[in-house]
Amino acid sequence: MKQIKVAVVGGTGYTGAELIRLLISHPNVDLTVVTSRSEAGVALSHYFPSLRNVGADIKFNLPDQEAFAEVDLVFFATPHAAAMRTVPALLSDGKRVIDLSADFRIQNVALWEQWYGVEHVCPELLPSAVYGLPELNRDKIKGANLIANPGCYPTSVQLALLPLLKAGLIDIDDIVADCKSGVSGAGRNAKVGNLFCEAGENFKAYGVAGHRHLPEILQGLEIIAKKPVAMTFVPHLLPMSRGIESSVYATLTEGSLACTEKDLYDVFQDSYSSEPFVDVLPSGMIPDTRSVRGVNTCRLSVFRPLGKRKLVISSVIDNLIKGAAGQAVQNMNICYGWPESMGLNELVVWP
Amino acid sequence: MKQIKVAVVGGTGYTGAELIRLLISHPNVDLTVVTSRSEAGVALSHYFPSLRNVGADIKFNLPDQEAFAEVDLVFFATPHAAAMRTVPALLSDGKRVIDLSADFRIQNVALWEQWYGVEHVCPELLPSAVYGLPELNRDKIKGANLIANPGCYPTSVQLALLPLLKAGLIDIDDIVADCKSGVSGAGRNAKVGNLFCEAGENFKAYGVAGHRHLPEILQGLEIIAKKPVAMTFVPHLLPMSRGIESSVYATLTEGSLACTEKDLYDVFQDSYSSEPFVDVLPSGMIPDTRSVRGVNTCRLSVFRPLGKRKLVISSVIDNLIKGAAGQAVQNMNICYGWPESMGLNELVVWP
Amino acid sequence: MKQIKVAVVGGTGYTGAELIRLLISHPNVDLTVVTSRSEAGVALSHYFPSLRNVGADIKFNLPDQEAFAEVDLVFFATPHAAAMRTVPALLSDGKRVIDLSADFRIQNVALWEQWYGVEHVCPELLPSAVYGLPELNRDKIKGANLIANPGCYPTSVQLALLPLLKAGLIDIDDIVADCKSGVSGAGRNAKVGNLFCEAGENFKAYGVAGHRHLPEILQGLEIIAKKPVAMTFVPHLLPMSRGIESSVYATLTEGSLACTEKDLYDVFQDSYSSEPFVDVLPSGMIPDTRSVRGVNTCRLSVFRPLGKRKLVISSVIDNLIKGAAGQAVQNMNICYGWPESMGLNELVVWP
Amino acid sequence: MKQIKVAVVGGTGYTGAELIRLLISHPNVDLTVVTSRSEAGVALSHYFPSLRNVGADIKFNLPDQEAFAEVDLVFFATPHAAAMRTVPALLSDGKRVIDLSADFRIQNVALWEQWYGVEHVCPELLPSAVYGLPELNRDKIKGANLIANPGCYPTSVQLALLPLLKAGLIDIDDIVADCKSGVSGAGRNAKVGNLFCEAGENFKAYGVAGHRHLPEILQGLEIIAKKPVAMTFVPHLLPMSRGIESSVYATLTEGSLACTEKDLYDVFQDSYSSEPFVDVLPSGMIPDTRSVRGVNTCRLSVFRPLGKRKLVISSVIDNLIKGAAGQAVQNMNICYGWPESMGLNELVVWP
Repeated sequence: MKQIKVAVVGGTGYTGAELIRLLISHPNVDLTVVTSRSEAGVALSHYFPSLRNVGADIKFNLPDQEAFAEVDLVFFATPHAAAMRTVPALLSDGKRVIDLSADFRIQNVALWEQWYGVEHVCPELLPSAVYGLPELNRDKIKGANLIANPGCYPTSVQLALLPLLKAGLIDIDDIVADCKSGVSGAGRNAKVGNLFCEAGENFKAYGVAGHRHLPEILQGLEIIAKKPVAMTFVPHLLPMSRGIESSVYATLTEGSLACTEKDLYDVFQDSYSSEPFVDVLPSGMIPDTRSVRGVNTCRLSVFRPLGKRKLVISSVIDNLIKGAAGQAVQNMNICYGWPESMGLNELVVWP
Repeated sequence: MKQIKVAVVGGTGYTGAELIRLLISHPNVDLTVVTSRSEAGVALSHYFPSLRNVGADIKFNLPDQEAFAEVDLVFFATPHAAAMRTVPALLSDGKRVIDLSADFRIQNVALWEQWYGVEHVCPELLPSAVYGLPELNRDKIKGANLIANPGCYPTSVQLALLPLLKAGLIDIDDIVADCKSGVSGAGRNAKVGNLFCEAGENFKAYGVAGHRHLPEILQGLEIIAKKPVAMTFVPHLLPMSRGIESSVYATLTEGSLACTEKDLYDVFQDSYSSEPFVDVLPSGMIPDTRSVRGVNTCRLSVFRPLGKRKLVISSVIDNLIKGAAGQAVQNMNICYGWPESMGLNELVVWP
Repeated sequence: MKQIKVAVVGGTGYTGAELIRLLISHPNVDLTVVTSRSEAGVALSHYFPSLRNVGADIKFNLPDQEAFAEVDLVFFATPHAAAMRTVPALLSDGKRVIDLSADFRIQNVALWEQWYGVEHVCPELLPSAVYGLPELNRDKIKGANLIANPGCYPTSVQLALLPLLKAGLIDIDDIVADCKSGVSGAGRNAKVGNLFCEAGENFKAYGVAGHRHLPEILQGLEIIAKKPVAMTFVPHLLPMSRGIESSVYATLTEGSLACTEKDLYDVFQDSYSSEPFVDVLPSGMIPDTRSVRGVNTCRLSVFRPLGKRKLVISSVIDNLIKGAAGQAVQNMNICYGWPESMGLNELVVWP
Repeated sequence: MKQIKVAVVGGTGYTGAELIRLLISHPNVDLTVVTSRSEAGVALSHYFPSLRNVGADIKFNLPDQEAFAEVDLVFFATPHAAAMRTVPALLSDGKRVIDLSADFRIQNVALWEQWYGVEHVCPELLPSAVYGLPELNRDKIKGANLIANPGCYPTSVQLALLPLLKAGLIDIDDIVADCKSGVSGAGRNAKVGNLFCEAGENFKAYGVAGHRHLPEILQGLEIIAKKPVAMTFVPHLLPMSRGIESSVYATLTEGSLACTEKDLYDVFQDSYSSEPFVDVLPSGMIPDTRSVRGVNTCRLSVFRPLGKRKLVISSVIDNLIKGAAGQAVQNMNICYGWPESMGLNELVVWP
């Protein structure tokens, strides 16, 4: 007997599809509503042939208010500036919301509006929105009504830096995050730049002049650092479907130069040893994106190359799982007090 | 409490890795032994970082006889001509064997030796070896001690043809199977031809003059047809990791020309409606390999283009799952009388 | 001193881009006009950064009649049903036209209209349109005013069959062409199906019920066979950018069963020995698409597997070169009486 | 009439194959010798079917001294520590040498031996070896007898930094080079890690603890900076065949904070305006690796994100061309006083 009924808004994109997969398999939830304006009335198993014969016998709904009447929890897998138009009414109706878009991630409304180029229609909800990075905010996620699920790059970069910031080991005004993402990070929009012939056998930086995930990352880091952090963040587009690798470069403080690579490993291990979804690799091992493909793990390792002051942290996640749908399910589990890994125990399909 | 203990021989290849994944997650088995000559003594979770922290805390063993003392069932994921050297002793010791290599697939020893170029060391076991294609041989698989798990191409092609042969609708002397496989079908050997720079952005036929899977396919088809079948089989190498598509071309018999595409769909649906792992697509839909990636399903559809005599059946499987490790687990489930889908219910990770 | 001025209509697609590359480098032509409705006024070298600093200092034009005032020859690299609206006026003005779209490929207007679903606006031009497959029609191409450049699949399949049909060696009512194309064959349209995450690591048949290239192929084959040819043609989508492989299956006539594989090689070699762009591989070698990537060669080989009646011809081309832009330049060279390989001598960039 | 005869040592690898392609097409040279221990006696056009019918009718030689008797110039496309064993004899015989391996790149013998783990057998030649980065060393390359062709990463990174170092705009003790290379950079060795199924749909850093290209990069930078430079260099493996992107992060000196992004563009443009193979993109444009695929261009752009102190330079090359074979031909052209772009004018095949 399932405990709650859930809905997914925006079920035809890549994040929506992964949410559907995870929720169909989740022991405690009943996925009763999936919305799509373009596919309303079509069976999910017709739209996604991979869902044929798996018991997902529902049809796409229009995202009308009444569609959500029976559900307890609504996931938004929509482009930014969509969720904020519906969330207030849902919260008023006593629903819980986990928003995978950016609408409730940034507490500073002016900053959000500057980066997203739209007016926020319900800034009054921001104070009660909890930023859903469990490794930073687990206690607040428990019982929260509105959870802002982190962005993919921000998840990867914050997890690479939190232990170092907590331990006060690095200069907070000279951090570089060189991040690379698979094409699914760009969503399922029919844009020329995401065509196979354009994105395949190709690599480039993008958003070098400034990317929306920077203020989100800084907001998280500054909670720990308790002062302004300066970071250069450059995303790149990888010729593959899914996976993010962030190579983060940070400088040891003058006072921390005695810190060996083994000490640094211990700092990370101490921070994350009880985390179900962060795996710190032993010194010398380097994570690859394939080792987290399809699962909710962030795998990382820390290096101090040639004993110099500059540290390198390489952190990998699946952008659609720990960077989106998986973390949303993790947040749901925490929110409802269920085992945190429930429904998230699948193994990597390799190769 | 697990019911049986199992071993995997050859645990570092792609098929071995998938067997390990499926067996670790299987409710009724305890994977206690995985062998590898080159990695003996190394922890599985060290060799496959994706297995870190998932409870797979065993090390690779040498494939010595004593390694198997405690196990009930041994899977062979070895190159051909290896299993046959160990299987007799295992069977004598009362173990069951599911061999994913070709050693026990062909009943005609001379034919096997001709295609595989080695002498068979235990031809006396062949009569008791059951060809593990459940859709053809389910009853014999129950309780079998030695199961010869089918090849990847043979699984895909036989499933495309069995219903037509049973119904006697096609000429058995004019069949073409044009098959395409992802690179993992070639195994994990360090060969130049399988390098990323050689196999990527490239496509070609191979084995046109004759391929070992042809006699295996014909053996299965002739059991149904009850007379010699003539087929041209050409495999091709796809620039992707996993997945097989077989486009099979067959000619309606003179007497079957009244058969419409809908009738053909019904013939397939009748054959496979109770099969847990064969999905017949409705008329007009064409399967793609992504829709079966990582799962044990064979998805297929049948066409009669422009109403001519030639039929086209497109059949897709994951070469490592329904074409190898998944079918082996399905065979184990049948053999032990467990629910046939046990441990095989994962959903496709898409995209 | 260049001999003629040429224009390309539709310069932002993949075929257009390849035409631009080949024409910029061609010794005898001056590429003075490239049109694009969406990019009019933009410099080619801005739109295609790979054309920076190579002397291609022109801007996209609107495709107005006056744009072509000064040119001698116009190439159309447009979707079907576009060229036919402009070609009559151009011909009246004394321009030559090489149309890479399908508008003038099929002599039977009714058949064309049935497959393309539009009314043909200038059927009176069809009798004077020359089908630009040099290996079939070289003499007619010389001096032609309107050349219908063949489709990519039709080029690959016709070249695989012409020698066998000329020699009368095969049954003309039982031919199968199983063809596979890279994604660039679908053009540069922003469609979901062509996105990296959809077309990558995936493979499927398409157009099984019937594809527009079939009547074009049959028209060519029937010129040689001098009677109706029956063929089943199934295209497939490869997870790579460019390249077509066609595996063509044909049956030896009763009277030709003495024909050995070596004899078949000789038949092909006799047909193509003086062809600059068809390379017949020696018996036993199989062509791969990489060996023709970026060049105008069709490479093929013929097999008679296991000495049975069924022949297999594997034929590879680059769909954008011999299947489009390169063949168009070859046709131009023939038309103007220049050396046929002029501007087409680049070597394959490998890997 | 060709002016010189040349040899390629190590003709079966990716760099060797590209050298062969460029040299066959070069107007001033006659490629008369290509060596390979494993393929001696085999025709090049048999080994590389893409070289059939292009007039490259030579066979692989054994790399014996006599093989080089008639040639003027020898290119080494061998793994490190091979060229140094043959080069002294060749130079004694009056041959010129362009070594694409690392043997003569680093002037400090002890440093070279430390990073390459072998004893250098002819350190006495190092003082006369010219580091063949034309943008740094053009004058010395003219007439040189021994040219050490730069590594792929070092080419990309040095070109990203030279103008800034010359202008004294950046701190030389805080540079990060985050570099990504296609798989061909690893050579054509049959290693498991380079298999399609391992390197495809995957991304990871490697050599984080220290990579051989670091001392080579620093040697070049320090020539300009005239003092020690501190850099963190992390290479990564891209799931594609060819192309390098380097994102280089540098900090404006205190005294240069007035420098705008436009000023920085001017600094680069001033440095490179007369360079035939460095293309500085206008402010705001970001280079992609496809735009240099198969050609000898380095394309780059410089950013000052959000007006902060940290600069980002993104620099792309084809690792096999400007990063190896193309630069070697450029060096040959300079050495012999020929037009620097001779034989290097091909256009990018796109997509």
